[in-house]
Amino acid sequence: MAGKSLEMYYDFSSTNAYFAAFLAPALCRRMGASLVWKPFYLGHAFRLRDHSVNRDHPPGKLEYLFKDHQRWSQRTGLPFNRPTTFPIKTSLALRGSVVMRAQNLEETYIQAVMSAYWVRDENIAEAEVLARIVGQLGADGDDFLAQVDQPGSRDEVVRVTNEGIARNVFGAPMFFIGDEMFWGKDRLDFIEDLLQADI
Amino acid sequence: MAGKSLEMYYDFSSTNAYFAAFLAPALCRRMGASLVWKPFYLGHAFRLRDHSVNRDHPPGKLEYLFKDHQRWSQRTGLPFNRPTTFPIKTSLALRGSVVMRAQNLEETYIQAVMSAYWVRDENIAEAEVLARIVGQLGADGDDFLAQVDQPGSRDEVVRVTNEGIARNVFGAPMFFIGDEMFWGKDRLDFIEDLLQADI
Repeated sequence: MAGKSLEMYYDFSSTNAYFAAFLAPALCRRMGASLVWKPFYLGHAFRLRDHSVNRDHPPGKLEYLFKDHQRWSQRTGLPFNRPTTFPIKTSLALRGSVVMRAQNLEETYIQAVMSAYWVRDENIAEAEVLARIVGQLGADGDDFLAQVDQPGSRDEVVRVTNEGIARNVFGAPMFFIGDEMFWGKDRLDFIEDLLQADI
Repeated sequence: MAGKSLEMYYDFSSTNAYFAAFLAPALCRRMGASLVWKPFYLGHAFRLRDHSVNRDHPPGKLEYLFKDHQRWSQRTGLPFNRPTTFPIKTSLALRGSVVMRAQNLEETYIQAVMSAYWVRDENIAEAEVLARIVGQLGADGDDFLAQVDQPGSRDEVVRVTNEGIARNVFGAPMFFIGDEMFWGKDRLDFIEDLLQADI
């Protein structure tokens, strides 16, 4: 069977993508669907439209959103701590996803980097931090550092980001089942319904 | 028993408040909680922070949101049609809520005006349209028109709106259980959990 696939545009800087990075794989396993990870450089998309998370939210909204994330944490059992630096530069971490895909460690890497940032407040903008995480996954950190600097990983992130922008990805996580687009971790129940109906 | 109460800041111009205007009363009945309606002039709050729904959303986001509303419509069985005029002036309709509260027709009126706008595309900015709706509810349309012009109804909407802004209401619907704030129709399950735990 070809089966259904769910595409997920994510960035490490998105709290919602953090939760979804654990919830979506579980959902896909349950539904027998495959998950296609799309490393999307949200900072680039935001800059294109001159959007700033800290500047454009009304006072108090960010505070509310972090409270809401705490509630999601309680509901899902996924730990969550507000990071010191937010937002954070993620281009290197996203390029790392491309590198780890080739080693069949893409999902493990994504979840490990998400947890490093959203649980343990680690500085995932730094190459050494990423290399250490990669080492903990049993891969070669030095090899990772060499590959993440190659144009190939950068080009792939640029390609996916432009592809996403062309598909109207304006936030993260953004999911697609075929042409049906769903925004946010809040829509996993809608996604489940559609996967159920279609498979 | 005193019971729990759920406060709901709403405006007729909010699609999410439209759905919530039907879902929240049903939830409160199920949970034995009372619903306190708070007519909140969202347009005023948006102007205070120079926010424009049409200007500040990235291209394609509004389109996505209306698609999302269609999905909610299918899921809840509540009809939904995208109105011709959006956003719409709601100060008069909100003052009408205050008038109808005194006649114990507050919830019925709110739901009727919500449906007029979000289902039948009626111009709820016009006094005559509101008076006709009120007449269909068995109340006196002329009396309504006279009262809606009194300073009392305006003052009450101003008071509630300022109260909301002071409580960090930055969108609609915004719910409170005591000091716990919840934003959007998407959080009714969180609200249900809290009502369940507390009652």
